[in-house]
Amino acid sequence: MSQLYSFGKFSKARIETLSDGVFAIILTLLVLELKVPHIEKTDSPAELLHALKLHAPKFWSWVISFLMVCVVWINHHRLIDQFKGINNGLFWANANLLMWTSFIPFPTALMGDYPLNKLGLFFFGISLSMAAFSFTIMRLYVQRKKELLADFVNYDVFKKGTRLSFFYGTLAYWIAASLAWIHPAISFAIYFFIPIYFIFPKASKAN
Amino acid sequence: MSQLYSFGKFSKARIETLSDGVFAIILTLLVLELKVPHIEKTDSPAELLHALKLHAPKFWSWVISFLMVCVVWINHHRLIDQFKGINNGLFWANANLLMWTSFIPFPTALMGDYPLNKLGLFFFGISLSMAAFSFTIMRLYVQRKKELLADFVNYDVFKKGTRLSFFYGTLAYWIAASLAWIHPAISFAIYFFIPIYFIFPKASKAN
Amino acid sequence: MSQLYSFGKFSKARIETLSDGVFAIILTLLVLELKVPHIEKTDSPAELLHALKLHAPKFWSWVISFLMVCVVWINHHRLIDQFKGINNGLFWANANLLMWTSFIPFPTALMGDYPLNKLGLFFFGISLSMAAFSFTIMRLYVQRKKELLADFVNYDVFKKGTRLSFFYGTLAYWIAASLAWIHPAISFAIYFFIPIYFIFPKASKAN
Amino acid sequence: MSQLYSFGKFSKARIETLSDGVFAIILTLLVLELKVPHIEKTDSPAELLHALKLHAPKFWSWVISFLMVCVVWINHHRLIDQFKGINNGLFWANANLLMWTSFIPFPTALMGDYPLNKLGLFFFGISLSMAAFSFTIMRLYVQRKKELLADFVNYDVFKKGTRLSFFYGTLAYWIAASLAWIHPAISFAIYFFIPIYFIFPKASKAN
Repeated sequence: MSQLYSFGKFSKARIETLSDGVFAIILTLLVLELKVPHIEKTDSPAELLHALKLHAPKFWSWVISFLMVCVVWINHHRLIDQFKGINNGLFWANANLLMWTSFIPFPTALMGDYPLNKLGLFFFGISLSMAAFSFTIMRLYVQRKKELLADFVNYDVFKKGTRLSFFYGTLAYWIAASLAWIHPAISFAIYFFIPIYFIFPKASKAN
Repeated sequence: MSQLYSFGKFSKARIETLSDGVFAIILTLLVLELKVPHIEKTDSPAELLHALKLHAPKFWSWVISFLMVCVVWINHHRLIDQFKGINNGLFWANANLLMWTSFIPFPTALMGDYPLNKLGLFFFGISLSMAAFSFTIMRLYVQRKKELLADFVNYDVFKKGTRLSFFYGTLAYWIAASLAWIHPAISFAIYFFIPIYFIFPKASKAN
Repeated sequence: MSQLYSFGKFSKARIETLSDGVFAIILTLLVLELKVPHIEKTDSPAELLHALKLHAPKFWSWVISFLMVCVVWINHHRLIDQFKGINNGLFWANANLLMWTSFIPFPTALMGDYPLNKLGLFFFGISLSMAAFSFTIMRLYVQRKKELLADFVNYDVFKKGTRLSFFYGTLAYWIAASLAWIHPAISFAIYFFIPIYFIFPKASKAN
Repeated sequence: MSQLYSFGKFSKARIETLSDGVFAIILTLLVLELKVPHIEKTDSPAELLHALKLHAPKFWSWVISFLMVCVVWINHHRLIDQFKGINNGLFWANANLLMWTSFIPFPTALMGDYPLNKLGLFFFGISLSMAAFSFTIMRLYVQRKKELLADFVNYDVFKKGTRLSFFYGTLAYWIAASLAWIHPAISFAIYFFIPIYFIFPKASKAN
């Protein structure tokens, strides 16, 4: 048994494999929410175009969720790289993250079906806020169990990263979710821009 | 060919990959049972809230099953680590475990749809009892084929672990399932607490 | 680039990963065909039991297909182990196998829904016969491109294995499928016993 | 941390795993679009045969998409092999490819349901054109960031490959899509032959 193993009784590699598997499946399952619309005159392009247009919110929900799961993957990747090993507590903190992430297809479908429903949009934001908060929990846990941190990690930088991840993740989604009660379009726009923001390297350095 | 291979004609790594793949997919597929409820006034938060509340048992079923599959993953991980190699018999004992585990989405959906149906709750418990029993079968098989056990494994400790896994797994679920005939809520509560019990490291040491 | 790579321009490891991924997903997707039956009196165990009994053919179809995909996995594993590398032709022969294997959920659902329909049972057998025949194609291809065979492989034994795999796989399923026209129950019984036959090590040595 | 890592802050292996996971899942999910047809007389082979015949376009759509995702896999495999490492920009270019590829089940279902609808066929081709174009984007990005190219890659050959991949991928699908407006059968035929074309090694050397 390697030294890593003796740390936490868990192989980091197998947990990465499990997590990557879950992320890959979520990315791909999201498309199952896009159902072929029913049309009467099956060979009519005009009717199909009309039906697809009505589906537009489902497409945008799909794009948003796809990008968000990519952001989760990146953040997960970066965070796990900073760990020396994984113990029982960290396994469950990671499982909590996987649970909230694998939940995403449901609020995505909800938002796609009822794009003007304030509760649907609020629910979507809260769900993502919980996924983001799962990262904060993992980080706080490791801060208390410093022996799990890899040697090259600067503890103060890590701590700062925890704060930033809370503000730019959990809180950002929570605010976006709350704004749904003013107008759904505001939330929808913010949901769209949060992953866009992470696509640019400068921003994602924060984590 | 490595020595491991010559043991059982199966690569342990590829069986781990297959099993982890199956576990990751089950974890993620469970969410497909959460269907967006149909509401008439699509922009009414009140109606959506009401519809989601009616869905509550499906959410809880999902959480329970998610946690249970995590427990299966952990137990699988710990058990496989104690094997030197995998032969034909062990492959099929493992396939039996994968079959019962991949079955979980069905009783989960059943329990979520009919949370007050005693048979549904009984069926859920029995299914999980069978998944747990698959571990006992794997362990009993390896006890008979000692050459499959890794060198660092103490045979008597392993044997004790088999007994414990039977009592805390198979039997616990079987009892919980039986109690459904007294009142569904009892089973539901026990189902919820079994994974919680495994989350704490002391308990899970028993393997 | 390793020597393996220069053989066939394909990394054996990545093709194994892709194939194992596909097999793991098929194993898990099969359960999606088991739909929760609709019952009127949601808390009636008697009505649920009756509904589940009507579903029995779907359960058995699921078990048969699960075991069959396990057999495919084993055979794939053993065959790939005998290759030195994978070239373009072998990639597509493997893709053909993946295609027929990933098709299995459809005839499984068909047989589960219409267990007494002779065409459904015939169709199931023919589909599996095609999956089995994909192995024969892979083997015949490699026999012509001997340089793809690993050094430890005896060419004559390999050739004999090809013949055996054709008779015990392709032909066995084809005969079972044809017998559906006499009586569906005959096919169903044979479908059930083919994987059982492979579970015993002596039989599977043939491959 | 390896040198590869320091290049792009991303582990090439984990991105390959994620991508292969997504490809494997798409390959397998495609079959979910093949629904068991509803027949009245459940044991009538004639009625089932008739129902399956009506489903023929869905089968062919499935075969086409399956082969196309295999082609995407091959191209991805070959392209990634030519990279030294993966940076933030390349991660998102790859995510873009995964997004368009994971979208494929939707236009496949659309084409399968409405095989005579010109818009459906056009939509299918445009979606695949976008997936193909994602490769061009990845290639153009790496051409600008030459330090990401592996040492054995000849820059001019790579550049020529980019042009070829644009013409034989993006443009070919775009033309096929446009021809749907003349007659759906023309597009359908071309869609079928594009992957066939890639199956022969000479053609695929172009990439």
